[in-house]
Amino acid sequence: MEQSIGIGLLGAGTVGSALIARLVGESEAIAAKTGLTFDVRKIGVNRLERERDFAITEGLLTDDPFEVVNDPTVDLVVEVMGGKEPAGDLILAALQAGKPVISANKELIASRGPELIAAAERAGVPFLFEAAVGGGIPIIRPLSETLAGERLDRVLGIVNGTTNYILTEMASEGSTYEAALEQATALGYAETDPTADISGADAAAKAAILASLAFGTWVGVDDVYVEGIEAITSVDMTFAAEFGFVIKLIAVCERSESGVSARVHPAMIPLDHPLASIRGATNAVYLEGPTIESLLFSGPGAGGGPTATAVLGDVIDAARETLAGAQVAPRIRFSPTELVPFTDVATRWYVRLQVDDQPGVLAQIASGFGDAGVSIRSVWQEGVDDEAALIVVTHSAAESAQRSALASLRAIDEVIEVASVIRVLEHES
Amino acid sequence: MEQSIGIGLLGAGTVGSALIARLVGESEAIAAKTGLTFDVRKIGVNRLERERDFAITEGLLTDDPFEVVNDPTVDLVVEVMGGKEPAGDLILAALQAGKPVISANKELIASRGPELIAAAERAGVPFLFEAAVGGGIPIIRPLSETLAGERLDRVLGIVNGTTNYILTEMASEGSTYEAALEQATALGYAETDPTADISGADAAAKAAILASLAFGTWVGVDDVYVEGIEAITSVDMTFAAEFGFVIKLIAVCERSESGVSARVHPAMIPLDHPLASIRGATNAVYLEGPTIESLLFSGPGAGGGPTATAVLGDVIDAARETLAGAQVAPRIRFSPTELVPFTDVATRWYVRLQVDDQPGVLAQIASGFGDAGVSIRSVWQEGVDDEAALIVVTHSAAESAQRSALASLRAIDEVIEVASVIRVLEHES
Repeated sequence: MEQSIGIGLLGAGTVGSALIARLVGESEAIAAKTGLTFDVRKIGVNRLERERDFAITEGLLTDDPFEVVNDPTVDLVVEVMGGKEPAGDLILAALQAGKPVISANKELIASRGPELIAAAERAGVPFLFEAAVGGGIPIIRPLSETLAGERLDRVLGIVNGTTNYILTEMASEGSTYEAALEQATALGYAETDPTADISGADAAAKAAILASLAFGTWVGVDDVYVEGIEAITSVDMTFAAEFGFVIKLIAVCERSESGVSARVHPAMIPLDHPLASIRGATNAVYLEGPTIESLLFSGPGAGGGPTATAVLGDVIDAARETLAGAQVAPRIRFSPTELVPFTDVATRWYVRLQVDDQPGVLAQIASGFGDAGVSIRSVWQEGVDDEAALIVVTHSAAESAQRSALASLRAIDEVIEVASVIRVLEHES
Repeated sequence: MEQSIGIGLLGAGTVGSALIARLVGESEAIAAKTGLTFDVRKIGVNRLERERDFAITEGLLTDDPFEVVNDPTVDLVVEVMGGKEPAGDLILAALQAGKPVISANKELIASRGPELIAAAERAGVPFLFEAAVGGGIPIIRPLSETLAGERLDRVLGIVNGTTNYILTEMASEGSTYEAALEQATALGYAETDPTADISGADAAAKAAILASLAFGTWVGVDDVYVEGIEAITSVDMTFAAEFGFVIKLIAVCERSESGVSARVHPAMIPLDHPLASIRGATNAVYLEGPTIESLLFSGPGAGGGPTATAVLGDVIDAARETLAGAQVAPRIRFSPTELVPFTDVATRWYVRLQVDDQPGVLAQIASGFGDAGVSIRSVWQEGVDDEAALIVVTHSAAESAQRSALASLRAIDEVIEVASVIRVLEHES
C-alpha cells in the first residue's frame, strides 16, 4: 500500500511548520510504521507566514486558501490556521468535496462543531481534531472511542498552559499575578495579548469540546460559564496553601440526573488531588466514571512539536480509513440532553471578607449565608488593628443561593469588602 | 444505521460477565452515543463459569468455544478467556472467517502477536486489544494511532497492580513483603497463585506489547528481561526512602541508536518522578519522545469493570469500521530492528553489602567496581558492632560490567553478603 497521500495545509505558523518538518524529515519512519507515505502538495499561508523560510516547500505556497482545498492533487486537508473564519468555510468546502479534514481549531469546533461533524458524516469522510484539546495529550480519541461505552460522570481539566504557569509561579515563588504574567510572556508561554488565556476563553472552548464528547450531547462554547484568573491574589494563594489547597484554573464538565453542565473558573483544589500536582505549562485531563473509576492524562498542552504529533496521528488515521475506500461512519453522535443552567450548579465557596472587628459581625455574616440556604463548613478570622480578615468556606450550594448570600453580605455595614470568592473543588462529585 | 451486531463471547469470567452486563444494561446509552446496537449471540464458557448466574443469557451458553466462532449469527468475536490455547487457535479461526476480534489476552499477544496481526491483515478485519495492557487505561490506541507519527524514545510502565499494591504497602506502612502479599491476597488484588504477578511475568507480557507498538518492531515476551519483587526487603525500602527514592516494579522499553530493549525489574525511582506517586493497585504508563516531551496515563489497571470498558471501546470501534464494509488496513506495521541484549543495557545500580568493618574493605570494593569499568556515584556506610552495612550507588554501566563487578565483590573475603541489588531509574534517559 505504498500509495502517496496528498496533503493540503491551511496555515503554516508554529504547528503548521512543525508538521511540514515532520512529514518531510520523518517520512521513512512514518512509512515503516504505518505503510503510508505523505506528500505536502499545497500550503495556504498569510503574509506573516510567507516571510518564514520554507525552502523545501517554496513552490507550494499560496495566499488563497481555497486554492488548497480545491487542488485536485490534495487528498486530505489539515487546518491549522486558527480563527473561526475563513477556517470554517474552508473546512466545509473540503468536506463537501469528499476530502478528510484534520483540524486543531478549538474555537471553531466549539462553536460550529455539529455542523462540521454533520458535513463529514454526509460526505462519509473523517473529520478529526485530536490537537484541539490538550495539545499533544491524546484525549479526544480516548474520549470518543476507547471510552465510548462508559457513562462518564465528570471531566476535570487543566487545559490552558499559560494560566497554569502563572498560578504555579504565584503558588511556588510567591510572585504577584502581574509578575507571573510578565514572566509567562517573557518565556513565550503567554501571547502578546494574553486575554484569551487569562480570561478563560481558551479553556472554555476546550471545556465545550470535552463535555460534548464525554457526554455525547452538544455543549457549545456559549453554554460554558467562564471566569478568568485576573482576580486571583497572592493573599488567596497563601490562604489556599494554609488550608491544604492549591488554586488552579479548571474546566469542570459534569453530568447529573438533571443534565449536563460545563464551566471554567479558578478553583481551590485539595493538595492530594491528582490535578494539584500538575505544574507549569503542563496540561491534564481527569475523567471519572462509574466503572472506569478515574483516569488521568497529562502532558504538554501546547507547542508546535506536541501539537504537530497529535495532528500527524489524525492524518495517519484518516488516511488509513480513507484508503480503505469506504464511507466512514462518524465516531460520535450527539443526542439532545438538558443543559443545567449555571445558577443551578452547586459548588462550595471560599469567601474572603474584610470586616470591622466588632461584636456581632460574624453572626450577621452567618445569617447572610443561612438565610440564603447556604450552610457554612468552616470560618477563620484574623484581626489586625480594628479590622479583621474573615474567611468562610461553605458546603455545596447552588450558584443562585451562593450569589444571594453574597449580595446580603455586601449589604452588611461592617463588611468593608468582599475581597475574593473562589470555588472549592469537591474531591469526588 | 440501527443495525444490530452479533457478538460471540469467549470466556465469561470477571471481564466477560462485566461486558455482558454492559452490553445488555446500557444498550440504549451505547446506541445513542454511537448509533450501534449489539446483541450477544453465543457465549463459550468453561465448567467453572457455567455455575455463575447468567439469567439473561442462559440459552446462549456453550462449552464448545469453536461453536461461538463458527456461529453464523456471530459477527464479531470477543476473547476474554485468557491463556495461550485454545485462545490463539480460536482467534485465528475467527479472523480467517472474516470476523473482527477483540482480545484482552496479553500473554497470547506477547507470544503470537505478529501471526494474529498478519491474519487480521489478510482478512481485512480489525484485531484490537486495548484491554491487554493497563486494563481500563487507554494506552494501546494512543500508542498505535495518536502517536504513530512520534519517534518515542522510552516507555516506562507500572503495569501490574498486585506488585504495586505490595510495594506501596511496604513503603508506606512498613509491612514486610510477606505481610503485604497476604493482604493483597485478602483484598483480592492477588490471585491464589500470585506467581505470574510477583515474578514479573505478567508485566513482561505487557512490556513486550508496549515496546512493539511504541517502536514499531516486534518484541516478544521472550525478548524481555524479567526480575520479580520477591527479593525486595523492608531494609531496602527504608534506605530507598532515605535516599529520596521509592521502589517500584517497572517496565522499561527503550530505543537507542543500537536498537530497542525491554525489561521488567524492581527499580528505585526518584520521588519527584511522576511514576513515584502511583500508589496501590493503580497502573500508569509514562512516554518520552523528542517532540511529545512526556505523557503520563494513569488509572485502574485491572478489574472487570474497567477492563470491560476498554473491551467495549474496541468492540464499538471494530463494529464501526466493519459496518463501513471495506477491507481494514492494519493500524501498525512491524519493521525489523536490532534488539539490544540485556547484557549491553546500561543501568545504575544500588548495591547493599554486609561487610566486616575492617580497614581497606572500601578500597577493595571500589577496585571491584573500578576494574569492571563501573564508576561509583555515592557510598554510604553504617557500622554495627564489627560488621557494617555498605551501600554503593553506581553511575550507569552495561549490565555485563555491573555483573562482573558484582562477581568480584563476592570474591572479597571481608564481604559477608551482597544483600541486595536494585537498579536505579535515571530521570531522563
